[in-house]
Amino acid sequence: MDVIDIITAKRDGGELSPAQIDWVIGAYTKGDVAEEQMAALAMAILLRGMTRPEVARWTEAMLSSGERLDFTDLPRPTVDKHSTGGVGDKITLPLTPLVAACGGAVPQLSGRGLGHTGGTLDKLESIPGWRAALSPAEMRRCLEDVGAVVCAAGSGLAPADRKLYALRDVTGTVESIPLIAGSIMSKKLAEGTGALVLDVKVGSGAFMKDVDAARELARTMVDIGNDNGVRTSALLTAMDTPLGRQVGNALEVAEALEVLGGGGPSDVVELTVALAREMLAAAGLDGAKDPAAALSDGSAMDAWRSMITAQDGDPDAPLPVAAERTQILAPSTGVLTRLDAHAVGVAAWRLGAGRARKEDAVSFGAGIALHAKPGEQVRAGAPLFTLHADEPARFERAAELLATSFDIDGRHEPLPLVIEKVGATA
Amino acid sequence: MDVIDIITAKRDGGELSPAQIDWVIGAYTKGDVAEEQMAALAMAILLRGMTRPEVARWTEAMLSSGERLDFTDLPRPTVDKHSTGGVGDKITLPLTPLVAACGGAVPQLSGRGLGHTGGTLDKLESIPGWRAALSPAEMRRCLEDVGAVVCAAGSGLAPADRKLYALRDVTGTVESIPLIAGSIMSKKLAEGTGALVLDVKVGSGAFMKDVDAARELARTMVDIGNDNGVRTSALLTAMDTPLGRQVGNALEVAEALEVLGGGGPSDVVELTVALAREMLAAAGLDGAKDPAAALSDGSAMDAWRSMITAQDGDPDAPLPVAAERTQILAPSTGVLTRLDAHAVGVAAWRLGAGRARKEDAVSFGAGIALHAKPGEQVRAGAPLFTLHADEPARFERAAELLATSFDIDGRHEPLPLVIEKVGATA
Repeated sequence: MDVIDIITAKRDGGELSPAQIDWVIGAYTKGDVAEEQMAALAMAILLRGMTRPEVARWTEAMLSSGERLDFTDLPRPTVDKHSTGGVGDKITLPLTPLVAACGGAVPQLSGRGLGHTGGTLDKLESIPGWRAALSPAEMRRCLEDVGAVVCAAGSGLAPADRKLYALRDVTGTVESIPLIAGSIMSKKLAEGTGALVLDVKVGSGAFMKDVDAARELARTMVDIGNDNGVRTSALLTAMDTPLGRQVGNALEVAEALEVLGGGGPSDVVELTVALAREMLAAAGLDGAKDPAAALSDGSAMDAWRSMITAQDGDPDAPLPVAAERTQILAPSTGVLTRLDAHAVGVAAWRLGAGRARKEDAVSFGAGIALHAKPGEQVRAGAPLFTLHADEPARFERAAELLATSFDIDGRHEPLPLVIEKVGATA
Repeated sequence: MDVIDIITAKRDGGELSPAQIDWVIGAYTKGDVAEEQMAALAMAILLRGMTRPEVARWTEAMLSSGERLDFTDLPRPTVDKHSTGGVGDKITLPLTPLVAACGGAVPQLSGRGLGHTGGTLDKLESIPGWRAALSPAEMRRCLEDVGAVVCAAGSGLAPADRKLYALRDVTGTVESIPLIAGSIMSKKLAEGTGALVLDVKVGSGAFMKDVDAARELARTMVDIGNDNGVRTSALLTAMDTPLGRQVGNALEVAEALEVLGGGGPSDVVELTVALAREMLAAAGLDGAKDPAAALSDGSAMDAWRSMITAQDGDPDAPLPVAAERTQILAPSTGVLTRLDAHAVGVAAWRLGAGRARKEDAVSFGAGIALHAKPGEQVRAGAPLFTLHADEPARFERAAELLATSFDIDGRHEPLPLVIEKVGATA
């Protein structure tokens, strides 16, 4: 096998053979294929695409580059959720204990945020004491005892993806549906879940800006999952405006606690319940407890407290608060007709909630509270946003971004929160 | 400036601005843009193309990455030739002293062979004592004293191209007309020639397999040269069958000496004279001595002897001879209707005349003598090829390749040797 033959075959629009895919992923993982060679191949894949058999094999080769966890002997069926990332997307926080409270076991390996979308681990790390790094044995114990775990993927899982993801990030080769699908699914298959529900975001704050591209990504991932024996479906959901009313790490934990306490913003509750029902169905737990009931009767909150405690977090400790805050007021009275998810995400990032480079730290207290959501009435001079940051110097750039992030009394054409479902094909 | 913005702009089919091109070439030369980032950009350029202004700026940026020689104060006009590479292409050897004998000064920076095409420096290094590495001062002295110099490019000339060429070689990004044109022309502009004639090869043994692609490459390079004040034209010439009857380093020097002595194969003589006339015209020396006369009256040979001597070579020393030889006989009687340049080139490479990696040594004596050329009569049992190698173990693989390299009494559709001329546009 020669890597240049493989690069030129894809460059010229050909289909890579299973043997070529296995070889190139294996050689790249070992370092026998150089970063620059994989970068050229990734760009060729981005521009030329991949067939369904190619994507399936690519994913399997990345999965085979490391170990695969196995929870088939747990008493409960395992099921996980993956979101392609959005602004204010704290759904994993209430969803994971909620599904556990309804009888599922959720083995979630999660990531940190990069750029304008937050990361679940960053949010949970704002809880004093909470640990993201667990051994496989600790992870199993959480699943046995609590039925839920959210932790960082160990370096032994899909190491090819870890290397390739870092490379794509610096070479302009992130935006490829086959490569995105392969990356997500190799990690989700490696974590050993028995069923999987994908939350594929669509809109300005999402990676996929239009429904067609999101549907293609969802379809590609659903096929990979089912082809590999993991019952997989996807919901396409709106990310044109932030989810909920809080954007930032500790701010989103606080909002998740409202939802777990039976309250919280209606969009967060709606999506959490919709995804929980989908997950329970995928796990074969259709007849189990209804998720809406588990939110109102306190059982989801109990599961949350157990889950946080099992990972050394203190569920009763006060959450970090940013040192400084300021408000942006509504310039006129009327109906808020647009609140752009991307602008809010970037503004929160500027305030310190996100990171530009992997090695940067995040501010747990930084972020933005939204005083109105699209469709709601606002009044001139009343607060529209409250900005939180550790240093007041950060307010200016965030405020600049937010100034053009909304319309009052403009046209209002919101996406439905759950746009459509993509299920298994034959 | 951000390299990812530049990569994604080209990836998405955009045109890079002059500032973006200058920045990315400068940052790559300094090491601030990583090899994997340039590899992704090169693949995007290969698949998306470049506009004429982009190619021009790309070339100028690579030129500006290093020094530019200046021979404008020489008494003779400078003119150079560049060939895109072929099998048996020893034309530089007789051509350079021939143009000098007719009044031009030829400042040729040349390269070594890689793969199935030979390199001029490898051929000349088969002459005992001859040195390829000259300082700019030595180069100038040769031009003043002899009117001809063939030497290796110093590391100060177009360092961006040196780095990029090595990268493209291992990332499947060689076959891009803008990148090929930029690479060749940045080096040729850096060597300080006042005029330039390009020999763009077409056919099985050439980089460009069809006339349309060769014409596009020629046109791109001719435009770059003229846009930069170097009078540039190109000939598209045939490379479906090897040039001359000798393929290999010392073997080709011997054939060049035949041409300089007034004899030699008619195709080598024809192309040498055609290119010499084109070069003299480009240098404004149309009314000077006719090249055909300079070959027959010995003045070109005198220039050769001076040129070799000036670079410490001994023009009277015997040339290296390979230790072993064998013959391949014609299997039938008839007219040789095809003799494939690529197969002969690869076979010569296998015999030791070429190298697979830059750091490999070549065998000076290895190569292939062709006993018949397309259009000539062959007789069953008479020699068709003589193979030369230092180790007899090399004969088998070469013979295998040569077995299917020719047809006897098949269809005979040779390309004309000089297919067309591409001149300056307004």
